[in-house]
Formats: sequence, structure tokens, C-alpha cells
Amino acid sequence: MRLVTIDDVRAAEKAIEGFAVRTPLLHAAWAGDLWLKAENLQPVGAFKIRGAANALARLPEGAGVITHSSGNHGRALGYAAARRGVPCVVVVPDTAPAAKVAGIRDTGAEIIMVTPAERFSATERLTAERGLVLIPPYDHPDVIAGQGTVGLEILDQSSDVDTVLVPVGGGGLGSGVATAVKALAPTVRVIGVEPELAADAEESLRAGELIAWPQEKSYRTIADGVRTGLSELTFAHLKARLDDIVTVTEAEIRSATGELARRAKLVAEPTGALTTAAYLRYGSEWGRAAAVVSGGNLDPELLAELVTAS
Amino acid sequence: MRLVTIDDVRAAEKAIEGFAVRTPLLHAAWAGDLWLKAENLQPVGAFKIRGAANALARLPEGAGVITHSSGNHGRALGYAAARRGVPCVVVVPDTAPAAKVAGIRDTGAEIIMVTPAERFSATERLTAERGLVLIPPYDHPDVIAGQGTVGLEILDQSSDVDTVLVPVGGGGLGSGVATAVKALAPTVRVIGVEPELAADAEESLRAGELIAWPQEKSYRTIADGVRTGLSELTFAHLKARLDDIVTVTEAEIRSATGELARRAKLVAEPTGALTTAAYLRYGSEWGRAAAVVSGGNLDPELLAELVTAS
Repeated sequence: MRLVTIDDVRAAEKAIEGFAVRTPLLHAAWAGDLWLKAENLQPVGAFKIRGAANALARLPEGAGVITHSSGNHGRALGYAAARRGVPCVVVVPDTAPAAKVAGIRDTGAEIIMVTPAERFSATERLTAERGLVLIPPYDHPDVIAGQGTVGLEILDQSSDVDTVLVPVGGGGLGSGVATAVKALAPTVRVIGVEPELAADAEESLRAGELIAWPQEKSYRTIADGVRTGLSELTFAHLKARLDDIVTVTEAEIRSATGELARRAKLVAEPTGALTTAAYLRYGSEWGRAAAVVSGGNLDPELLAELVTAS
Repeated sequence: MRLVTIDDVRAAEKAIEGFAVRTPLLHAAWAGDLWLKAENLQPVGAFKIRGAANALARLPEGAGVITHSSGNHGRALGYAAARRGVPCVVVVPDTAPAAKVAGIRDTGAEIIMVTPAERFSATERLTAERGLVLIPPYDHPDVIAGQGTVGLEILDQSSDVDTVLVPVGGGGLGSGVATAVKALAPTVRVIGVEPELAADAEESLRAGELIAWPQEKSYRTIADGVRTGLSELTFAHLKARLDDIVTVTEAEIRSATGELARRAKLVAEPTGALTTAAYLRYGSEWGRAAAVVSGGNLDPELLAELVTAS
């Protein structure tokens, strides 16, 4: 299996210019030597714009696209497709948060709502029927290379980072970031973070083989962005390039989401708070850490609940 | 009266290095051609660190400081004083939001709680008794010069901005930003924003003379950072250098605070949302606008209320 290379990530950096922004790396002194890579400040509220914009840039002119997504990738693809003037269909599981579905709808993309179990078959059928190109949320080299640009920017913004923390769901972000960081700064550790309730990547990496969790098990976590499992492609990247993977509890995720709003003044979704939660639990061993705050798309009611909980 | 010059602001830029951060200027495409200067992402959650750090840098080594503040300036001065290892006393009106008082306390500064009416006399008495140097929140050339660095950064980050929007309370930020912007880019308009319920600066500028509003009148607004009036010094700067001043309603301030959290993923306090509120009301006339999001320190319960209100 061919893995994405640092050259692919470098090429992606050029391809996404004008679509993704260079997000700030903010010192969270209240937490220690923690630096927040604020991907929630992207135009679509999540890092996903990087992979989506890179994948679209590599398609033939005018090709329409389709994807399945619980929210952020669908919104990112819709946004990039609208900017390029090509049609976009997003197949959405009916468990996705309302704020994320509204975000997709705002881009002008066509939304097809299905049950979580139906989403792959529905996507396959529509892809064939309409002659669209499938851009999956993580199982694609161009998507991985696009997400890897987060790693390039962190190294550029902090010359003395010791550890980079990434949330792991489908594994596209982790695969891309580990590719960039280990190629350019092999001594910097790249550590994945998962909820205990959706720790399929941790189990897979410990076992040395891809282990899928049943959907109903992973869907227990509040971190809706990491309820999906790895693909063979992202598992191969993480196995080769990720230094370690840790898990955090639901209580830790909720608390970190509140802390980010109260102390860092950043609206992060629970998935975006995974890496901060991990730092607050294990950070004393990690030296200077850069935590990717992957996204900020959550329902206002949930933000209200988490920011007022102690 | 000697006004602050662009050279003073340039000198401040060097003096505050390592204390204030260069905050990002983020495109709020959902609102139009609006760019948010995210001063809520400063270490103390507000632009006030700039003026406080500059004023402290100009004092004799080891001098202790005192100030009166409803929150953000006190916290900023406490933070800068702690970093320099000098004592700091903050006289706080007992109407200040709990989150702001906690922020001051966290810096290690000594807090003296008084009624709003007592704060000037209490400050005067303590200054004399303890041999401290008074660094007022806005009525000071070094503070104004420090706040002006926001203007330098905006011009540097956006070469084609047409309008810069600043909240006006005591007028330190507006004085500094207008000084920097009108010196370097005279065709860029600098517009102040006030709540209708605390529009003493607007009334003063229209009348051509400083008009004070009674405290109980200005204290009606939710935007607690701009309940104070101008000083002779800041009035002179604004009269000479501000292009215009506009007002917004309480409903507009509340709504803009919610929008910033939901759409820009930024936690802003009501005062920090004033400029966005103004853009949403008047922005069509302003071309490309940079709005200073002055701070993000508000009680979690209020954030919860505003983010869930429609």
C-alpha cells in the first residue's frame, strides 16, 4: 500500500491556499505548556476544509462530488465545491447534530438523510446513478495529504514543540499530521487521542491489526466527530507513523470543552476538545505540546450546558 | 494638550513584545466583508494587556502599581505586574462581573472592592498611603499608545481595509487605534461604536465638548466594558482623529455576542461584540471592515443565555 509522503503534503499546502486559512497557534498558559492549533477558526469551523479543498483541486475541471459525513467533512466539501462551482451531494446519518446539518445546508450542497447503517450503500448507489466522484471523509490519499498541512503549520509556528496531539476518528487527520511531522522533525512525538467509548483505533494499534467496533458502541461518545472507525489506508499510516495513542473519559471531554470556552475563549466541539482533555490528564509527561482543536461546530444548547457545568 | 503620536505607538509595539500576542484577523464571511481582530484571544482575554504592559515597561524598576477597573484593565495590569515581579492593587466596583473579578484575583493582584461611586477616592487614598504608581485604565498616554498597537497590526494584516471599528468606553482603545491608523493610512475610516444606553462619547463628539453621563445611566448597558466615560485626554484624541461614531441597541449587542460564538467560534463579551453588532446594522456602507473584538471575559451563565437566544 502506498502511503502519503511529505511531498504530497507540501503539494497540498499550495493547493488549498485561499480555501483554508493558516489558523493561529495560541498559548493556553492556564493549562501549562499547551498550545492550541485553533482549527475551529477555519471558514467551515473545522480542519476538514484542508482535505476537501485538496481533493477537489486534483479532480478534472467541473466534476461533481459526493460524500458521506456526520457533518464537518460534508460541510467542508460543500463549501469548496460551491467556491469551485461544481455540484455536491452529502449523505448524512440522521444522528448528526443539527448545527452540523445546518452548516452543510448553508453551503448549498444537496443533503440526503439516511440511518447510520445505510450511509455507505446509499452513497454507492448515488455515486453510480449520478456520475459523481466520491470524496470520502478520510479514506483517500488527497484528503490525508490535505489534513497533513496542519502538521506543517505547527512546526512552522513553534520551532520547539515536543509533542503534537491529534484526535483520531477515521484517522485522516492523524495520518496526515504524523506524515508531515515525522518527516520533518522525527523527534517530535505525535500522539492520537480517542474517547474511551470509541477507542477502536487504540485497540487496533495495540493489536497490530484493524479491529472494527460496532457502530452502536462508538456512537455512545459525545464526540460525534470521532465515532467512525479507521480504514485500511489510515490504519497503515497510523501504525507506521503515530508514536502513541491515549484515551479520555466523557467527563474529561465535557470539562475540556467548557474550559476552552471559559479560559481560551474558543468555541470547540467535544471532538475538538479531545486533545486538550488529554493534555489536562497526561500533559506533565509531554513537554511543550501542540493540541489540534479540530473543530467548533456544536449545537448552541450543548455549548450552553458544557460552559456552565463545573 | 500633547496627543500621542505614531512614534509612541511604534515604541509601544516593541515594549509589549512577549506580553501581548499578535492576535489573528479572521474573515467572518457569514457577515460579509467583515474581519475580526480577535483580541479576546489575548492571554488575559482582552486588548487591555497592550496598554498595561506598555505603561509598566516605562516605570522605574520595581515600582508597584495601582488601578481602578471594572475588570479587564485590572486583570491585564495584574498579569503584567506579576510577570515583572512588582506589587499590584486593583480597586474594583462591586458591580463588576464575577468572571472578571476572578480573572483579576488569578493574577495575584490585591483586590479592593468598593461601590462604583467610591472608586476614584479609594484609589487616590491607597495610591498615597502605599506609595504606588497609578496606571488608570485609559486616561494615560502610555496606555493609549499601547492600545494603538491593535491598529498597527490591523494595517499590517490587511492592506486593503476600508474601515476600522472600535468599541468606545473610556476611549483609550479608540484614541490609540485612530492615532495609528490615521497616521499610516489617512483614507481608512476609524469608527467608534457605543451602546445607545451609554452613548456619552457620541453626545460629546456631536456637541464638540466633553459631556459626562451619570453613572446610573451608563450602567444600564450589558456591555460592562464601556460603562465609563471619556477623559479630557481621550476626548481630545477622538475629536481630532476619529472619523465617526455610531450606536447599537442592547438587542443588537446580545444577538452579535451569540453570533460570534455560533458562527465565528469566538467567545466574546458583550463589549467585544459591539463592533460586530455595528457592522451587522450599518456594514453595507463600510466596504472591507476590521472589527476589534475587544475581549472575551463574561460569566458562563451569560454566554449560555446569549448563545441559545435566537
